[in-house]
Amino acid sequence: MPRYKLTIEYDGTPYCGWQRQKNGLSVQEVIETGIHGFSGEPAVIFGAGRTDAGVHATGQVAHVDLSRAWDDDTVRDALNAHIRDEPVSILAAERVADDFDARFSARKRWYLYRIFNRRAPPAIDRGRVWWVSKRLDVEAMHEAAQALVGTHDFNTFRSSHCQAKNPIRTLEELSVAKGPGDEIHITAMAQSFLHNQIRSFAGTLKLVGEERWTKDDVVAALKSRDRTRCGPVAPPDGLYLTKVEYGNAPKRTLPTTAV
Amino acid sequence: MPRYKLTIEYDGTPYCGWQRQKNGLSVQEVIETGIHGFSGEPAVIFGAGRTDAGVHATGQVAHVDLSRAWDDDTVRDALNAHIRDEPVSILAAERVADDFDARFSARKRWYLYRIFNRRAPPAIDRGRVWWVSKRLDVEAMHEAAQALVGTHDFNTFRSSHCQAKNPIRTLEELSVAKGPGDEIHITAMAQSFLHNQIRSFAGTLKLVGEERWTKDDVVAALKSRDRTRCGPVAPPDGLYLTKVEYGNAPKRTLPTTAV
Repeated sequence: MPRYKLTIEYDGTPYCGWQRQKNGLSVQEVIETGIHGFSGEPAVIFGAGRTDAGVHATGQVAHVDLSRAWDDDTVRDALNAHIRDEPVSILAAERVADDFDARFSARKRWYLYRIFNRRAPPAIDRGRVWWVSKRLDVEAMHEAAQALVGTHDFNTFRSSHCQAKNPIRTLEELSVAKGPGDEIHITAMAQSFLHNQIRSFAGTLKLVGEERWTKDDVVAALKSRDRTRCGPVAPPDGLYLTKVEYGNAPKRTLPTTAV
Repeated sequence: MPRYKLTIEYDGTPYCGWQRQKNGLSVQEVIETGIHGFSGEPAVIFGAGRTDAGVHATGQVAHVDLSRAWDDDTVRDALNAHIRDEPVSILAAERVADDFDARFSARKRWYLYRIFNRRAPPAIDRGRVWWVSKRLDVEAMHEAAQALVGTHDFNTFRSSHCQAKNPIRTLEELSVAKGPGDEIHITAMAQSFLHNQIRSFAGTLKLVGEERWTKDDVVAALKSRDRTRCGPVAPPDGLYLTKVEYGNAPKRTLPTTAV
């Protein structure tokens, strides 16, 4: 059966998350229903990142097997037509090799966390950013973030619901920089992340930005491997899965858990 | 009574527009209710621009008289606390002279119209941009827009519901330029606008961007002073009132109608 790679943008606000669940509409269900709508066949899609409820994406990737070899653009346009009432958009559909796996072939995953740092709450970007009213020290946040880059046991920075057996991950990038307007952008990149890892980073780095924590406090929290030492987990509103990179030769890698 | 100038951001999607109406919640009512909530007094606010249903603002201005002289920041923060469940945010509150009038003292009004120009529909910015899937010629749009700048009878480019007796306005700026990502931004500035004037411009300039109209067609439409010669009026989703400028000495000017 022809396999397609889908690149997907969504506003996560109205959904219970990426993954299908019994009690709530998921992004996965929206897209699977859309595929059934245009192709007439039941479809199951597999995503690169299992984003939580309220988490957004501008570059989620999924794969699906269809019984017929449709033209790439036809898949994209027909699927978008069928899901037009939902804030989910198929940016691209591409025929890929049968061994391409959106989840297991992924080499690098990029996430963006948007902090909205001004006195007045956001109106236009409500639900799409984390509002922090107190002025944050962006440079101190970036400096502290560098202590987290590298291969570490990230047990401090994961949810108690995290199902990964191994809490060791290699964080390739964690940068904090001024974004447009009053925004502060945290960019994180790794092959895979633990459940709530980036929201745990964002909540912890906010404490640094407020000058309540120092870089040394972040290092001590990391080394403790103790979840109770993590800063408050930041809300899902500001988190976006922005890009997934694949190598030329897909290979089996660590499974990715929800972030 | 002390007079305050409020600078306001809102997502217009859930509202029937700026102005209070019997059948629907307006931005004006949200703010008036919030003022009553913190000050305990009935309040009436006066806005610089009567934005239509679904039209947004990042820099709407209104004035209100309060019975007590509160600290500026207290007015802003208390009001924001009382309207926190609504996508409306008070960016600033400032005590102003008694003769300041948000509507009649305004010298310049800026609006932004955001076109989202890509094949796939917007998910994150749904309701906040006008989605145009066919690639538009931005330079041709800008060039044609210059034919509209200046003092003209803009009868072609206003709603049949427009209540202004005089359709002559002086358009000081109408520029079309690439925005971030896949956006095209139309920026319009004048002391005042006619009802639906900017959405009429946007719909007409889109025809130019699609190469269905030339600049000469725009000139002919303007000169005809005939509403039926206007391009299709663009949806409210992409329109933002971004800034209102006041002179040092407020003066009475033409009333502004809804845009």
